[in-house]
Amino acid sequence: MSKVIIVGAGGVGGVVAHKCAQLSETFTEIVLASRTIAKCNKIAADVKELQGREIRTEAIDADDVAATTAFLEKEKPDLLINVALPYQDLVLMDACLAAGVDYLDTANYEPPETPKFEYKWQWAYRERYEQAKRMALLGSGFDPGVTNVFCAYAQKHLFDEIHTIDILDANAGDHGYPFATNFNPEINIREITQNGRYWEKGEWKEVEPMSVKQVYDFPVVGPQDAYLLYHEEMESLCENIKGLQRIRFWMTFSEKYLTHLRVLENVGMTNHETIDFQGQQIAPLEFLRAVLPDPASLGPRTKGKTCIGCDIVGVKDGEPKRVFIYNSCDHQECYKEVRSQAISYTTGVPAMIGASLILDGLWRKDGVWNMEQLDPDPFMERLNQYGLPWEVIEMPVDAEASDVFY
Amino acid sequence: MSKVIIVGAGGVGGVVAHKCAQLSETFTEIVLASRTIAKCNKIAADVKELQGREIRTEAIDADDVAATTAFLEKEKPDLLINVALPYQDLVLMDACLAAGVDYLDTANYEPPETPKFEYKWQWAYRERYEQAKRMALLGSGFDPGVTNVFCAYAQKHLFDEIHTIDILDANAGDHGYPFATNFNPEINIREITQNGRYWEKGEWKEVEPMSVKQVYDFPVVGPQDAYLLYHEEMESLCENIKGLQRIRFWMTFSEKYLTHLRVLENVGMTNHETIDFQGQQIAPLEFLRAVLPDPASLGPRTKGKTCIGCDIVGVKDGEPKRVFIYNSCDHQECYKEVRSQAISYTTGVPAMIGASLILDGLWRKDGVWNMEQLDPDPFMERLNQYGLPWEVIEMPVDAEASDVFY
Repeated sequence: MSKVIIVGAGGVGGVVAHKCAQLSETFTEIVLASRTIAKCNKIAADVKELQGREIRTEAIDADDVAATTAFLEKEKPDLLINVALPYQDLVLMDACLAAGVDYLDTANYEPPETPKFEYKWQWAYRERYEQAKRMALLGSGFDPGVTNVFCAYAQKHLFDEIHTIDILDANAGDHGYPFATNFNPEINIREITQNGRYWEKGEWKEVEPMSVKQVYDFPVVGPQDAYLLYHEEMESLCENIKGLQRIRFWMTFSEKYLTHLRVLENVGMTNHETIDFQGQQIAPLEFLRAVLPDPASLGPRTKGKTCIGCDIVGVKDGEPKRVFIYNSCDHQECYKEVRSQAISYTTGVPAMIGASLILDGLWRKDGVWNMEQLDPDPFMERLNQYGLPWEVIEMPVDAEASDVFY
Repeated sequence: MSKVIIVGAGGVGGVVAHKCAQLSETFTEIVLASRTIAKCNKIAADVKELQGREIRTEAIDADDVAATTAFLEKEKPDLLINVALPYQDLVLMDACLAAGVDYLDTANYEPPETPKFEYKWQWAYRERYEQAKRMALLGSGFDPGVTNVFCAYAQKHLFDEIHTIDILDANAGDHGYPFATNFNPEINIREITQNGRYWEKGEWKEVEPMSVKQVYDFPVVGPQDAYLLYHEEMESLCENIKGLQRIRFWMTFSEKYLTHLRVLENVGMTNHETIDFQGQQIAPLEFLRAVLPDPASLGPRTKGKTCIGCDIVGVKDGEPKRVFIYNSCDHQECYKEVRSQAISYTTGVPAMIGASLILDGLWRKDGVWNMEQLDPDPFMERLNQYGLPWEVIEMPVDAEASDVFY
């Protein structure tokens, strides 16, 4: 018997609602809350139709600590699942502390003005959560989230010592449009225009934006162009995986996608600042959004698969060893099950699994935790059980393998 | 003592005004006329400043035959130089016939709705111009224009028989922006999206848009990507150059330019049809124009050179022979002389030369004429004299040379 409040009614919020609804023994009462109750109601109707279960909806303002605390005190949930904007993490952590509710999120806090991707703001809550005997589980999505658990699993079962980790994220889906984004194109522009960063022998190293690339031959989806980027899970993994010498993160982008993004940036169509158009002030990015396909139209038409995993090199029983642990997810299968394609699905399912492990007591622990600090076994079991089955494949050990691409 | 009316106050109109002003003996009175008198006045002020001569300006509506005829009857010019829009060719030819004025243009008539690039509408005036004892000189720009004269010169002096002609047009200028156009981007989009066409052994052959490319090693500007396109001068040259077996036209586009144009087309930013933007109807192409650099800003910052010429293969004294006849023009030199870069300069100077040859009597002949039908020698001489010096280089004769690129 437990009650959960899901905050956020975007693509991921929808997946979390559907998946929680499927586990009626763990999630006996579900409330979906966001600023726009219409979005909650749309999801609730889909959940009713596809999962056959009623969930309740509420309007809340996740920027307001006092109002959110009052709401939590009235609702008295066991756990809050935060899949709202990363800017709202701290407000929700404060409200959970004040109201005595456990907390879970999928992406680390970012200050709205200067995106930083750092855990320091959330790690600063450790002592307060311990003293309040509350739990906060950070980054329970796919990456961060599942990728951290893959590393913890490798450390526990597959290696005596891990030397290097390469996290590889491929979306080989195709929506059939020459160009479209299913989220804010600014986020991608930021990704491809800011320096890449990786960690080696205790130090962070920077590389020019998109300057380090490899063609990685993924299982299921085959060879893809993968670019070295910074990604937040490296910050906790480099502290928590003992003996680690290097960790890097790679995301795939097709040449076609990058070309479109760069041209649109070149001509100024991705600018926020308004221009004068026939006496009216219009931001080019806003106009571009109106010209591009409606993101809501992408879900049903996206075909193909994702493949996200960890390529880990180390030593086992005195011998060098290398494995790739991964999940591959099919966009259309996901859409059939929860009306979202695989991008939201791979983030929402791990949020539900993390929540289930807290509520079932298997992961419940006072304090603020990253995923790899908890026992990977029950999480790995539930990935197989609830839609994100994983594989471990042995890889050829080759000292050069992940170094030749600079 | 002769009076000329220049119709059109765009970039080419400006060049024609400056260049006519430089030849005060031939062009004793110059009137610059267009719909927007402010544009005429701006050019007149520049002509006064740079060439030290006064020219008169008038507002006219070149879509209205009766009004234009009345204007010509009042002004009584010896010649009308039409550098307005190609849609207006027939109205101006009608008005010149009615008012008894000679006519010259630089681009063939296009019906406004379905651009056709065909001489048939203008060739239909032949008998009327002969009977009225008036002259119409068609296509006295660079291409058509100078390229036709190059062919006539080759036929007269360099070959006993011409077998193939390849006209090659390279603009190797750089304005320093990632992307900009100095004219309507629609025209380029039409060029790269419609089938290419060339003439061989009495037949027109079509190829897929941009499907035939060669890297041509130009004098002065070096190797450039040149694409086979249709261009209007081929229609008259294939009739007027005896023994011709094939004629093709090639224009250079950089990969970068094509990529930008294709991406903008892909995402819908080059569409005319309006979209709903926050309750307002806006054509994406109009918005794109507002985002791109102001075409007026390109002139002063464009560096580099053009190179346009004819690669001609044939027989002389029983031996195979191949030549390249070309002019190369420097954007910044042109800008210094007439406040326009080389694209307008290379069109405007030949218009002035054609006009000077009519007024001086060297080319004056009743009827409707294409450039290659008149004696090339005085035109070639004036090209050297008035800013477009040309070169003839002997090329290696190689049967494969212009065939291997399909």
